[in-house]
Amino acid sequence: MAENQQVALMRKARASASIDTQELTSLLWGSERIANERRAAFERVEKALGTYDTTKLPRRYSETSREDQFEQGLEMGKVCLNDMVAFDHEHFVWITPRYNLVNASPFGHKAILFEPSIEHNGTPEQKAKWLPLARAGKILGTYAQTELGHGSFVRGIETIATFDNDADEFVINSPTISSNKFWPAGLGFSTTHGAVMARLIVGDEDYGPHIFLIQLRSVEDGSPMTGIKMGDVGLKLGYNEADNGFASFDHVRIPRSHMLMAHSQLARNGTFTKDPLRAKLSYSVMLLVRSKMPGIFSVQLAQALTIATRYSVVRQQGLGPADALNIEATIIQYKHQHFRLLSLLSKTYAMFFASRICDGEYNKLREMQSKNDHSFLPSVHALTAGLKAYVTSEAVGGAEDARKMCGGHGYMATSGLPDIIGALAGGATFEGENYVLWQQVGRHLLKQLDRLQDGDTVEPHAQYLAGLNNPNEACTAQGEQFLVPDAQLIIFRDRAHRLVLKAHAVVRATGKSPVDAWNEHMILLISASRAHTEYFIVKSFHETISSLPDHTSSGLRDILKKICSLFALSTIINPGSVDALSFVETSGDLPPYLSSPQLDNIRSLANGLLNQLLPEAIVLTDAWDFSDASLCSAIGMYDGNVYENIMRWVEQLPINKNAWENSGVQKGWKNWVDPILKGNVEGKAKL
Amino acid sequence: MAENQQVALMRKARASASIDTQELTSLLWGSERIANERRAAFERVEKALGTYDTTKLPRRYSETSREDQFEQGLEMGKVCLNDMVAFDHEHFVWITPRYNLVNASPFGHKAILFEPSIEHNGTPEQKAKWLPLARAGKILGTYAQTELGHGSFVRGIETIATFDNDADEFVINSPTISSNKFWPAGLGFSTTHGAVMARLIVGDEDYGPHIFLIQLRSVEDGSPMTGIKMGDVGLKLGYNEADNGFASFDHVRIPRSHMLMAHSQLARNGTFTKDPLRAKLSYSVMLLVRSKMPGIFSVQLAQALTIATRYSVVRQQGLGPADALNIEATIIQYKHQHFRLLSLLSKTYAMFFASRICDGEYNKLREMQSKNDHSFLPSVHALTAGLKAYVTSEAVGGAEDARKMCGGHGYMATSGLPDIIGALAGGATFEGENYVLWQQVGRHLLKQLDRLQDGDTVEPHAQYLAGLNNPNEACTAQGEQFLVPDAQLIIFRDRAHRLVLKAHAVVRATGKSPVDAWNEHMILLISASRAHTEYFIVKSFHETISSLPDHTSSGLRDILKKICSLFALSTIINPGSVDALSFVETSGDLPPYLSSPQLDNIRSLANGLLNQLLPEAIVLTDAWDFSDASLCSAIGMYDGNVYENIMRWVEQLPINKNAWENSGVQKGWKNWVDPILKGNVEGKAKL
Repeated sequence: MAENQQVALMRKARASASIDTQELTSLLWGSERIANERRAAFERVEKALGTYDTTKLPRRYSETSREDQFEQGLEMGKVCLNDMVAFDHEHFVWITPRYNLVNASPFGHKAILFEPSIEHNGTPEQKAKWLPLARAGKILGTYAQTELGHGSFVRGIETIATFDNDADEFVINSPTISSNKFWPAGLGFSTTHGAVMARLIVGDEDYGPHIFLIQLRSVEDGSPMTGIKMGDVGLKLGYNEADNGFASFDHVRIPRSHMLMAHSQLARNGTFTKDPLRAKLSYSVMLLVRSKMPGIFSVQLAQALTIATRYSVVRQQGLGPADALNIEATIIQYKHQHFRLLSLLSKTYAMFFASRICDGEYNKLREMQSKNDHSFLPSVHALTAGLKAYVTSEAVGGAEDARKMCGGHGYMATSGLPDIIGALAGGATFEGENYVLWQQVGRHLLKQLDRLQDGDTVEPHAQYLAGLNNPNEACTAQGEQFLVPDAQLIIFRDRAHRLVLKAHAVVRATGKSPVDAWNEHMILLISASRAHTEYFIVKSFHETISSLPDHTSSGLRDILKKICSLFALSTIINPGSVDALSFVETSGDLPPYLSSPQLDNIRSLANGLLNQLLPEAIVLTDAWDFSDASLCSAIGMYDGNVYENIMRWVEQLPINKNAWENSGVQKGWKNWVDPILKGNVEGKAKL
Repeated sequence: MAENQQVALMRKARASASIDTQELTSLLWGSERIANERRAAFERVEKALGTYDTTKLPRRYSETSREDQFEQGLEMGKVCLNDMVAFDHEHFVWITPRYNLVNASPFGHKAILFEPSIEHNGTPEQKAKWLPLARAGKILGTYAQTELGHGSFVRGIETIATFDNDADEFVINSPTISSNKFWPAGLGFSTTHGAVMARLIVGDEDYGPHIFLIQLRSVEDGSPMTGIKMGDVGLKLGYNEADNGFASFDHVRIPRSHMLMAHSQLARNGTFTKDPLRAKLSYSVMLLVRSKMPGIFSVQLAQALTIATRYSVVRQQGLGPADALNIEATIIQYKHQHFRLLSLLSKTYAMFFASRICDGEYNKLREMQSKNDHSFLPSVHALTAGLKAYVTSEAVGGAEDARKMCGGHGYMATSGLPDIIGALAGGATFEGENYVLWQQVGRHLLKQLDRLQDGDTVEPHAQYLAGLNNPNEACTAQGEQFLVPDAQLIIFRDRAHRLVLKAHAVVRATGKSPVDAWNEHMILLISASRAHTEYFIVKSFHETISSLPDHTSSGLRDILKKICSLFALSTIINPGSVDALSFVETSGDLPPYLSSPQLDNIRSLANGLLNQLLPEAIVLTDAWDFSDASLCSAIGMYDGNVYENIMRWVEQLPINKNAWENSGVQKGWKNWVDPILKGNVEGKAKL
């Protein structure tokens, strides 16, 4: 059969690249071996799930109800657990076979929250008792902190664990509607145990939130334990594979030994003790999940861009800037599409590499903490908070733009994009609401300036605040100098510095109460936190490039440098950039940091980079090595054969097959359409 | 029963307003009479659909499959048609009972596209034959233009209508996979006739796209006509009540008289004639839908903000800027939430009032065209294109931000927000892809400058381009002057002027071919078009205020002025504003248009407006008069009783009821959970 137009366009776009896909894949995933093992694991799981053969319509698109989606999540969760045991790997600990954060599995909390919460908060005896059971899957756990009425503000939770001295037990109770535990994955129907946050009450004393291990269901038959009512929260924007659930407790009794007591202890006689230093360790569970999110969300954004890029090189539209060989131009040739796709792609690479550096910092912290040195905690806390907030915001915005770039076809579920967007959309809220996190970063930065004023040292990532340079002094770079890493770094550094200084000045100087001053200048504080994080990302990209493995080819080095420059420069001049004014605003009557000619200079250089990177677009997305099954997209398959792929799936939709088996008439016709046609519905509605 | 905390907070927030809700409602909907008629129509339809009693879980959330959602759409479509006939009104011609564009109904194309396409393109005989049938509902029509492979570029469509001279018939055929008609609402299963765009082929001659009336299904029993294969495109991000469908034609024959021949004619002998002047009328069908979208999308954004505002005044979190009466602060008291909510609300009002002015311009055009004067067409075309692109972009972004402002609970389907966002998301693409539209506006603006250079007049909405002022000259306003309408107008006008001049200079001056020059500077062109449109919106708001009905109270006038100022000023300094740099960028070495102190001045004034408008927040959303059923939101009901409302609906979810009827065990337990617990799944995955 002759190659059709779309397949030919894809082949051509793929052939235009100068770099080797496999080399980049190995760099992204760590090594060629890891990349191959990943691919093999995905293939096995996709075969077990029946999604590997992408000529078949995925169940996700044929069985679409809330109930069906949950059922698919149960199957997916079990298949992944089986594969990790059978082949001894961890590829699905953090992500699902579609690159969602594993919270999208009914068993998602098992390894990333339930076990770590015991690991980090349990005594040696508690760990010895519970961890083997949890790891062996003899019990399935979830972590239940948030309540219907309480999210970020942990101190506000209402569930209570009252100590009954006579029985040596806690009585767990949900005193109000708003105290229903709400949101934990698997809490609805699929887990047997919960690490449940509740206020410890002893006599008249309220010792605040602590973690209690509570059996939720019978391990034998799944029936709920007496006094516990659980269920699902219903359909969501995403993560419908999981039964994010609620639970209310009606005077449920658990032994005293089920309170996790590594940091606080309740003795048999009701005496409460607390070790404030060790309590800092409990933060690191939260940091663990948060530190993983930037990487995962960057990769899921890369999925959306893979779909959009593939579609954009085969979709033709109009007599635009076509090359000589085609009649109609492909949509990637239009500058607005070209600009959005490649600047988003460069941002994805930037965020991904920054997440790698962040991983390293988290590991360093864990190592220090294991030696009881917690001094690095504030730095890593601020870093993960900022990066989590930045990446989750940019990822969902970027994926939504990827969807728009696919026009109508991106609006169909079968494009795969609505599911990706739905999953990414959750990231702004869970594991730390982004605006709460930005404020934590802001608080940290102002403290660093306080320390400087007091002559103290500042933490490594805020070191630039101690510099002697004046960030309000206009940028002096010209022409091609904007392509030099240092020039880019200085622009982002000075901007962050200006904003932090300005925020510090107004918050600390004001005559208002600290709380009111904070609230009044919150927008500025958030901008400062964001600029600080963006500087870290640009810096991380340059550091990644300067520490590439020796064997990296010069071609790949060159392309990565261009992607890095495109990220830095397009961020400055992208009409959609957040806080764009802060790149030029200085102070008082000083000239702007970047002049109009400098901005036009940057625009022109960004345009040049766009042209140089256009031939690499397909390889830059292929390199993530997403399987067709993981993308689950009729318009984003490797072959580029979009129209045939769409129609193949559409023809398998049950709604169509059922109608066609009934002479092409859909079952609602009789009830709803026929009466209109027969009923003389006079449309008085004139236009 | 004692009033709970949330209900008390809502009552308090509602009582804090200074203006009268009903006065604003009447202003928004046109008059008190119209507002009352609307409300009554919604109430009747909601009762017929069973959604009026909002203690009952809406079917939308209990029956969630693709098939179920379509069935709900059929019922909704029929109930609305019935009500409009029975009570002789037009409230559901453009919107559904949930304020979606009516394309979300399987019968949505009937009155807004099918009938107008006959009205505007049919000969008197054709109109006399078809319109009564269509209006009486004896036939149900859809408008089928886009194809699987062709969207915005109408000239590229592939479906052909070949004239068979012997039979005096057309043979309609789909020659390729990509020529499948794709997307029209109702095309899947629910319409009997289509106004189908196809290329007219006579002998060897291709006369390009024309509209043909084709019977798709039997009016008697709904079976497809011979040679036509139709079906649904599957689940989408939104609009799942409609069967957006596909159709392929296999040599389907229709009489010659079924080509709509008002502007082009094919005689019995195959002679083709065309009236170029009359052909301009065919644009106005497209303009009709496009001119309605800004209003509809603004109102749907108002829905999202109503939900988010109501939630924000009753949701408590943390010990922030609480007032004396509460322990925990409500989230609207946090400046980031306060700023985002009220600046979005001000934008919604601005866009809504602009859509009103746009409606007036469209009506003026239609009146002129009825006298065969088409001179106003380019102006209205550019205006509707720009406003459609602006509003649809801002509306989906704003609704998505409203969702984020509701934290986890906004992520639940039952919040109502995912459906609103899904519906708004379509707007960027359908009825003119936004980036295509921005370019049309840009082309129009450059033409206006060409005309000026040639000494010709320019159209009214681009009149400012003819001004003698130098838009690169720095703004001189200071202090409270930024609250004066003229000062705000000049800032937006000068910015648009600067961008249009700059785009004109680079596109026209370049040595490249016009197509390449256009493509190279496309980002700038789009910025210019957007700034032009934003200026129109600010201007429309001020015009609306200065032409309020005489009986308008001074209190309402004052609040509207503040909302208008908040829109103008917050757009300049909002960290998320698009094209923010263009407010300060001038040219060459000239000082910035706005200095850093001026920007801080604007920030401080915006802060003051935020504080003044905070007590009005609930009334500013109540005034849209959305029924609880139309919002379909557990967290956005009028009473503010969010936690009880959430749990009441959650407990009615079938997935929960089914489990509870089975001793609390969900049916997947046996297949997927039990084997893990019994199967010794060793989680080797260490962290």
